[in-house]
Amino acid sequence: MDLATCLKKMKLVGVLAFATVDSEGAPQIRNISAIHYEPDALYFFTARGKNFCKELMEDGRVQILAYTKYKEMIRLSGKAYAAAENEQKKWMDIIFEEQPYLANVYPGDTREIGIIFCIDKAEVEYFNLGVNPIFRETYILGDISVKEKGYYITESCIGCGKCMRHCPQKCIEKGTPFVIRQEHCLHCGNCYENCPVKAVIRK
Amino acid sequence: MDLATCLKKMKLVGVLAFATVDSEGAPQIRNISAIHYEPDALYFFTARGKNFCKELMEDGRVQILAYTKYKEMIRLSGKAYAAAENEQKKWMDIIFEEQPYLANVYPGDTREIGIIFCIDKAEVEYFNLGVNPIFRETYILGDISVKEKGYYITESCIGCGKCMRHCPQKCIEKGTPFVIRQEHCLHCGNCYENCPVKAVIRK
Repeated sequence: MDLATCLKKMKLVGVLAFATVDSEGAPQIRNISAIHYEPDALYFFTARGKNFCKELMEDGRVQILAYTKYKEMIRLSGKAYAAAENEQKKWMDIIFEEQPYLANVYPGDTREIGIIFCIDKAEVEYFNLGVNPIFRETYILGDISVKEKGYYITESCIGCGKCMRHCPQKCIEKGTPFVIRQEHCLHCGNCYENCPVKAVIRK
Repeated sequence: MDLATCLKKMKLVGVLAFATVDSEGAPQIRNISAIHYEPDALYFFTARGKNFCKELMEDGRVQILAYTKYKEMIRLSGKAYAAAENEQKKWMDIIFEEQPYLANVYPGDTREIGIIFCIDKAEVEYFNLGVNPIFRETYILGDISVKEKGYYITESCIGCGKCMRHCPQKCIEKGTPFVIRQEHCLHCGNCYENCPVKAVIRK
């Protein structure tokens, strides 16, 4: 898998879930399909009067989730910002042309209540629960650095193999220390809870 | 539409998007299908080592989104809590029985890393973009009160009709004052932006 394929899959899924936080710090989620994909950015449409727009303006952090028919989850985490004033019309026209149903929702010039947001820096996580063992990988859109996540076995490992026996995905390999195959890890924490010497750390 | 039908539709969709907030106040979203539906509560499974579990333990606020093949969005907002200790096994067994694929992900007794959360008080919003005009309604699960949302026209209305002409869904009716048919309102804000006397308020 790679970034371009993930974006293509998101486009194929079409209707995605967008999560933001509101002014009270509560999670907010809704479906958005008015999205245009460029190789290096996503542009999406909403209306200025929606809480979604308010949340994007005030905070901007957004996670976008696509679930494919092959049981793949693709999750994009980034910060959205309002596209430049002089590009608003261009992207709006493209999105309305690509998705004719939008003209039923916002007929004629009522689309002028719309606003285009852009995301051009994001972490894109691919997670496939439909294969055995499960498979995950992370890709980067734009110029950002991302934090490592998940569980890792440190030098404190005594090689007892308890983690390996408790791993639902059998993704821990023998070694000094033992090693978690990150691309197959569920992040369930069973190795962490069962290690007798606390050699497993969580990042 | 009603609450029971919404829950039935969520169950039919199967794989839902769950949004929470992390310890940095950022939105987090993932797909969850390990859900069991009772008429008055939802129970769902995750693993204790997942960030999702941490977010539920630390904050608990969650929004769940289902998108049906009929372009309906169903959004449940509530607070999740860990089910009682002596009920954990019962709900876990039910969920694993209803969804056999889970035993591939967590084979044998590795499911013991799981934890069951419950939501029994929630606001459930139904939003159908596939009809014209669009249709929305809110239902309540359990004993909670919810805040009114959206746009309302106050007594300051001068009856000029500008809001009506700008409404993409034609859901504003003449009157003294004019009235927004809440069940058909997009919450786009076009009436609010175009009212010459600021008679439209946002809740």
